[in-house]
Amino acid sequence: MKYLSALPDVMIEDDVRAALLEDLGRAGDITSQILVPHDKMWNAALVARGAGVLAGLDLVRLVFHLMDVTVHFDACRQDGDDIVAGDIIAHVSGNARALLAAERTALNFVSHLSGIATVTRRFVDAVKPYPVAISCTRKTTPRLRKLEKYAVRAGGGRNHRFGLDDAVMIKDNHIAVTGDLCAAIRCVREAVGHTVKVEVEVDTIEQLRQILTSSADIVLLDNMKIPELRACVSLAKGRFILEASGGVTLATVRDIAETGVDVISVGSITHSAAILDFGLDDAV
Amino acid sequence: MKYLSALPDVMIEDDVRAALLEDLGRAGDITSQILVPHDKMWNAALVARGAGVLAGLDLVRLVFHLMDVTVHFDACRQDGDDIVAGDIIAHVSGNARALLAAERTALNFVSHLSGIATVTRRFVDAVKPYPVAISCTRKTTPRLRKLEKYAVRAGGGRNHRFGLDDAVMIKDNHIAVTGDLCAAIRCVREAVGHTVKVEVEVDTIEQLRQILTSSADIVLLDNMKIPELRACVSLAKGRFILEASGGVTLATVRDIAETGVDVISVGSITHSAAILDFGLDDAV
Amino acid sequence: MKYLSALPDVMIEDDVRAALLEDLGRAGDITSQILVPHDKMWNAALVARGAGVLAGLDLVRLVFHLMDVTVHFDACRQDGDDIVAGDIIAHVSGNARALLAAERTALNFVSHLSGIATVTRRFVDAVKPYPVAISCTRKTTPRLRKLEKYAVRAGGGRNHRFGLDDAVMIKDNHIAVTGDLCAAIRCVREAVGHTVKVEVEVDTIEQLRQILTSSADIVLLDNMKIPELRACVSLAKGRFILEASGGVTLATVRDIAETGVDVISVGSITHSAAILDFGLDDAV
Amino acid sequence: MKYLSALPDVMIEDDVRAALLEDLGRAGDITSQILVPHDKMWNAALVARGAGVLAGLDLVRLVFHLMDVTVHFDACRQDGDDIVAGDIIAHVSGNARALLAAERTALNFVSHLSGIATVTRRFVDAVKPYPVAISCTRKTTPRLRKLEKYAVRAGGGRNHRFGLDDAVMIKDNHIAVTGDLCAAIRCVREAVGHTVKVEVEVDTIEQLRQILTSSADIVLLDNMKIPELRACVSLAKGRFILEASGGVTLATVRDIAETGVDVISVGSITHSAAILDFGLDDAV
Amino acid sequence: MKYLSALPDVMIEDDVRAALLEDLGRAGDITSQILVPHDKMWNAALVARGAGVLAGLDLVRLVFHLMDVTVHFDACRQDGDDIVAGDIIAHVSGNARALLAAERTALNFVSHLSGIATVTRRFVDAVKPYPVAISCTRKTTPRLRKLEKYAVRAGGGRNHRFGLDDAVMIKDNHIAVTGDLCAAIRCVREAVGHTVKVEVEVDTIEQLRQILTSSADIVLLDNMKIPELRACVSLAKGRFILEASGGVTLATVRDIAETGVDVISVGSITHSAAILDFGLDDAV
Amino acid sequence: MKYLSALPDVMIEDDVRAALLEDLGRAGDITSQILVPHDKMWNAALVARGAGVLAGLDLVRLVFHLMDVTVHFDACRQDGDDIVAGDIIAHVSGNARALLAAERTALNFVSHLSGIATVTRRFVDAVKPYPVAISCTRKTTPRLRKLEKYAVRAGGGRNHRFGLDDAVMIKDNHIAVTGDLCAAIRCVREAVGHTVKVEVEVDTIEQLRQILTSSADIVLLDNMKIPELRACVSLAKGRFILEASGGVTLATVRDIAETGVDVISVGSITHSAAILDFGLDDAV
Repeated sequence: MKYLSALPDVMIEDDVRAALLEDLGRAGDITSQILVPHDKMWNAALVARGAGVLAGLDLVRLVFHLMDVTVHFDACRQDGDDIVAGDIIAHVSGNARALLAAERTALNFVSHLSGIATVTRRFVDAVKPYPVAISCTRKTTPRLRKLEKYAVRAGGGRNHRFGLDDAVMIKDNHIAVTGDLCAAIRCVREAVGHTVKVEVEVDTIEQLRQILTSSADIVLLDNMKIPELRACVSLAKGRFILEASGGVTLATVRDIAETGVDVISVGSITHSAAILDFGLDDAV
Repeated sequence: MKYLSALPDVMIEDDVRAALLEDLGRAGDITSQILVPHDKMWNAALVARGAGVLAGLDLVRLVFHLMDVTVHFDACRQDGDDIVAGDIIAHVSGNARALLAAERTALNFVSHLSGIATVTRRFVDAVKPYPVAISCTRKTTPRLRKLEKYAVRAGGGRNHRFGLDDAVMIKDNHIAVTGDLCAAIRCVREAVGHTVKVEVEVDTIEQLRQILTSSADIVLLDNMKIPELRACVSLAKGRFILEASGGVTLATVRDIAETGVDVISVGSITHSAAILDFGLDDAV
Repeated sequence: MKYLSALPDVMIEDDVRAALLEDLGRAGDITSQILVPHDKMWNAALVARGAGVLAGLDLVRLVFHLMDVTVHFDACRQDGDDIVAGDIIAHVSGNARALLAAERTALNFVSHLSGIATVTRRFVDAVKPYPVAISCTRKTTPRLRKLEKYAVRAGGGRNHRFGLDDAVMIKDNHIAVTGDLCAAIRCVREAVGHTVKVEVEVDTIEQLRQILTSSADIVLLDNMKIPELRACVSLAKGRFILEASGGVTLATVRDIAETGVDVISVGSITHSAAILDFGLDDAV
Repeated sequence: MKYLSALPDVMIEDDVRAALLEDLGRAGDITSQILVPHDKMWNAALVARGAGVLAGLDLVRLVFHLMDVTVHFDACRQDGDDIVAGDIIAHVSGNARALLAAERTALNFVSHLSGIATVTRRFVDAVKPYPVAISCTRKTTPRLRKLEKYAVRAGGGRNHRFGLDDAVMIKDNHIAVTGDLCAAIRCVREAVGHTVKVEVEVDTIEQLRQILTSSADIVLLDNMKIPELRACVSLAKGRFILEASGGVTLATVRDIAETGVDVISVGSITHSAAILDFGLDDAV
Repeated sequence: MKYLSALPDVMIEDDVRAALLEDLGRAGDITSQILVPHDKMWNAALVARGAGVLAGLDLVRLVFHLMDVTVHFDACRQDGDDIVAGDIIAHVSGNARALLAAERTALNFVSHLSGIATVTRRFVDAVKPYPVAISCTRKTTPRLRKLEKYAVRAGGGRNHRFGLDDAVMIKDNHIAVTGDLCAAIRCVREAVGHTVKVEVEVDTIEQLRQILTSSADIVLLDNMKIPELRACVSLAKGRFILEASGGVTLATVRDIAETGVDVISVGSITHSAAILDFGLDDAV
Repeated sequence: MKYLSALPDVMIEDDVRAALLEDLGRAGDITSQILVPHDKMWNAALVARGAGVLAGLDLVRLVFHLMDVTVHFDACRQDGDDIVAGDIIAHVSGNARALLAAERTALNFVSHLSGIATVTRRFVDAVKPYPVAISCTRKTTPRLRKLEKYAVRAGGGRNHRFGLDDAVMIKDNHIAVTGDLCAAIRCVREAVGHTVKVEVEVDTIEQLRQILTSSADIVLLDNMKIPELRACVSLAKGRFILEASGGVTLATVRDIAETGVDVISVGSITHSAAILDFGLDDAV
């Protein structure tokens, strides 16, 4: 799971700083400033409150670091790890005011991203015996795509394209305009750079048949029933990377995997994942 | 529902621009640029794909506006409205490339915020007969607090404090440091401005009894069982605003409301709401 | 004076960086670059040139730190201290070019904020025997509210609301629109969150009488003469927090305090404070 | 007074936006959102509450424009105008919520900058018969230099250098390092571009005599008494631009002007100017 | 040339604004402010001063628009057009101060980007008869990659990957670490998403032979002589996209094209292109 | 060459961070993340691939530092040094992933700026025997003026004005508006601050004669032939700083220098300099 590797700090500092400032507002943590002596130290532990997959530990570290560079942060686990309620994830110690002020922001990051990693892992586990990848989509929380796609990787999933610019995706609307799917694929091939893949969305096996000799790299089989998926696989396996998509759930994903498609993309792993809960506890 | 009023554009432009750029990347919507003639016009409709409460329409409008100032956007519904699958929310027409490039960003905003408004409304409806407010917490998605708290209002909920700076909240950790809850309340009162409210977290009725004559404005009854909540209400109703919190679900919220507390705060309405799905359809 | 506690660096770094860049322009400190050898070291002292109250020392430290991380900064005094001309506030030593380039920006911060703290302290001292708080307003220098409100705290004052969003303030213009002050207060109470206080502005004792049984938290007595203030205090003391405001000066503040109001808010402490002068001297 | 010409919007938009957001916080103007109907219109007038010189009208216009593009703003006066209490400066009409939300930010800008223009004008008037310019310094409020230097121009003053990069200024500290003033001037001349002027600070007529044949453009006569200033003028008038500086007040500026210096620079016009008060009144 | 389509304004506004502010500095265009009456209008023409390919017209339009929204901009030509000295590219009319202040920034953008488009076109023309694409690299001017890659498209070239994240490129350094090229390709394939292409750099035909049955999409033939290129094409044509790279010039590109490679990537078209000169002339 | 002194980090951090993020995109360096073990260390050397003048070493250092603070960077040479192909410029060692991810950004900075320094040096060397300065213009790459002007200094050139605000430049268009060159100069003199120089552009010796007694500081002799330049020098040497400009090349610059002008400004040293190539090599 090498690719899981944490995003470099330079890529996440702006997010962490903005999240901290959103919570600190215009006066900072007024409660702690009043009640906690300025030189009081505190030892705390980041503890899991539920079972799942860890993601976002670097963000937690950076939240505390940007709040106070003298905070000590020692990780006990790493992103991608399976964790259960009660697991100590990291020890955090330093100025008490700084820890208390940073606490909620740190927890919000790790809870949100671990929630995504956890649900991703459930899908990945559900299709275990089959040689199929679980992929995310572009249905992500606005401004958090980079982080959420990272969490998908932490959960064992793969990333679909990151934006409108890093792969071509020809959808029905595009076809409605140009009229001819094969012509569209040819047109795209001629225009884009050689490092860009071309994906085409089809709704029926009929459409798939039409583009069978085209130069598309990937075909998205949209909202198909299991038998139709199976037929498409028979028809085109090996010619294209075949991706099943549309309303996939934990209840249906295994049957879809069994059809032989190469990739199953699931929007809900990013847009509707519940958090995995964490807390910052006094470390006695 | 006057307070629902949309956030002024100056408060959301940065979010919208950042979300658009996150999707456009470094080359923009390469598929549409290649396949769609530059002067092609398109009429589309924003359509609900599920039932719930609408929130985020101004963000949708602004996404299209920042993508292309000449896009026409006509809203049929407004934030806070109950909607069902198939409802047309708005008509959007203009340059086809611009609409296609802005589509996913617009949908991501409205789906995320309507998801929050929808689950909030469910909690609000569940406690209908009782004079109790449903409130959010600071457990929000990093960088999106302002928007998510707005969505809570759209769903009929009330907002808890927006950050560490706009109200005092004395928690167990603070007490562990200062030792005496009543002293802490007095200390805070003397230090903060006169526009700031002071909230205190208690875990037991015993703690509540200790601060009964203090000048706290709000008491948070943390993770209490129904009978204990009821006892606290008997003891302190009218002296403080009483807020119940901790693991509240749709299954438990009505019983909590029945105890007579003034506010029930629910973290899951912001941190674990599934989206409400929307689509951008060809408007034939 | 615990709440005085310096703002965390993450809240002021942007201000410091922007101020430095405003002075460095597009070529930096061309004089020092040409005349001062690149490895020349310098020992300097931040010295007060007048008497007053210190505020902004953390900004000074951060100015030098962002200019050159190897600069040593040792504070001799702390924010909120009374100082007189000639007092050494801090020792600063390090690369001479860096110190010279950062000098003016550092001095501008500490002079501006100490000026505010100083005039605030004068108001606070003037009302000493009375149990009344001196408060600032929202009449602050654009973009510097966070810092100027901090300086008010350093001077012993309290902060009024930080913006339009952290407390309700019902003014004459609002009433002109809704027509009924009591109705307005009820309306607001129902809509805002339970952590938000409601303040109402009244111009006459008659208006005060009308809202006497309302649920307002604070009443601002606007531009009233001393006898009228006294009458308002007799009428409403204990029911509301009473705040006197409007053209308050050092000459009038003590008489206002004597009336028994709880808070006196003074715009001039932020919008018209002269600086307290400081210099960076060669430390022989 | 052509050079007074307002700064182009692109140079001030960031300041205006940041100032608005500082006041709107995370929830916007909650009072007006609750109490004022969303479609309520309002006609208001920007009115002077004191006598002085107007500066910052473009910022006022832009504050309202960024808050709501449909606001109408009609200026009756222009920057640099003499105004008295009661003068209507501009008519502003549009959505009531938008006007109320933008009011304080608009007033804070125009009050601060007009305060600077007003005190500048007083200095300019005080030296009227003499061919001498009143100049500002780099002692400005952090982050506001661009605006404050503009206000100085509006008051009839001239701008000194804008930063460390647009002119050379050799001070005592630099000399302490290099040892020889004349050598320093030669050294600078050889290194800087041909569009950059070189200014040298001297404390005594003796120092002035040493550099009499140097290629300096400007000599700053620092903290000199009137007779010494006069002697310096006799010695060096015409060879250099002579600038008097150091603790200049309205009481002393005319005598300084009489000595024949070319420029008098005054720090207090930017760092210690009281505001000129303005209000936004209902326009019946 | 559909893909040439101008980047949407939201993607270039920040660049344009930053470039304008870089030139306006802290006081704006002081010359025009002093000499040109504030209501003076001017009709000007953007004119080519050399022959080449136009690129960047949208940036020119946006420069004038952000300087003054009332400026009229009428384009006579479009990006990708062949132009010669004297050609009128666009008519620009409006406030004279605004046009003069924006002039240099507008010219710098269009000159730089047209320079890149022009040299790209020369390479494209040089390989005309051959079915080979001319591609750029990541050797671009820092912060301008998005714009420079657009200019390459305007000149008829194709874009290589936009960053480290949108395609895999296995170089010698990576191999030095992992030891085995084929293993590296397998490893990558398993880890990256299905929309990402994998490119491998080889220095010799021997290396190419080793990976002949691998799943790489693209093979970069680095710094090979013509005969070696030809041998590689014989060996692997059709299996991979073959890209020649390394010190390609106008003198050598045709011979390389003749070998049958699919893509020739040329760093100098972005990193060393001379500008194509333009001017803003009085439109009599 | 004291003025060459590196720009302080606070002035270049934003550029470096933006350039890194431009290359890292939304997923970072996916190749190295997959193939290189996360704890693999690497020793590398920054090596020149051509002969010229070094510029931008501080940017290289900062690129690696912002990527990973634990990277060791040891410079062997300094900006302004003459270097030849094969010279080791710096040793860089640390985490292999970090070095590989930062490599291209670092090389792009130093190659671009050294390219400018190199061509500047060629012009400087070409006029060696003459007391004339080689100066840049405002024809710089958008957003990079500060860096490119620094590179000019590194090459031994001088900087012309940095923007529209730090010197007055009266051009033909301004005269077309005001009608009288001498009146324009007087007008400017009265309006601008005393630290600002005034430059006037003339096309003919006749124009120069007209302004001979004016108070201009600099006269730009635009696009004149050698004899006309010589005549201008005879007429005005010593009265003004004389600057020759317009289409200057390495072939013509010596003859221009010989005419006796004080400054020769050359646009191509910033807008059309080819890069000086560098590489990051394995340091065995």
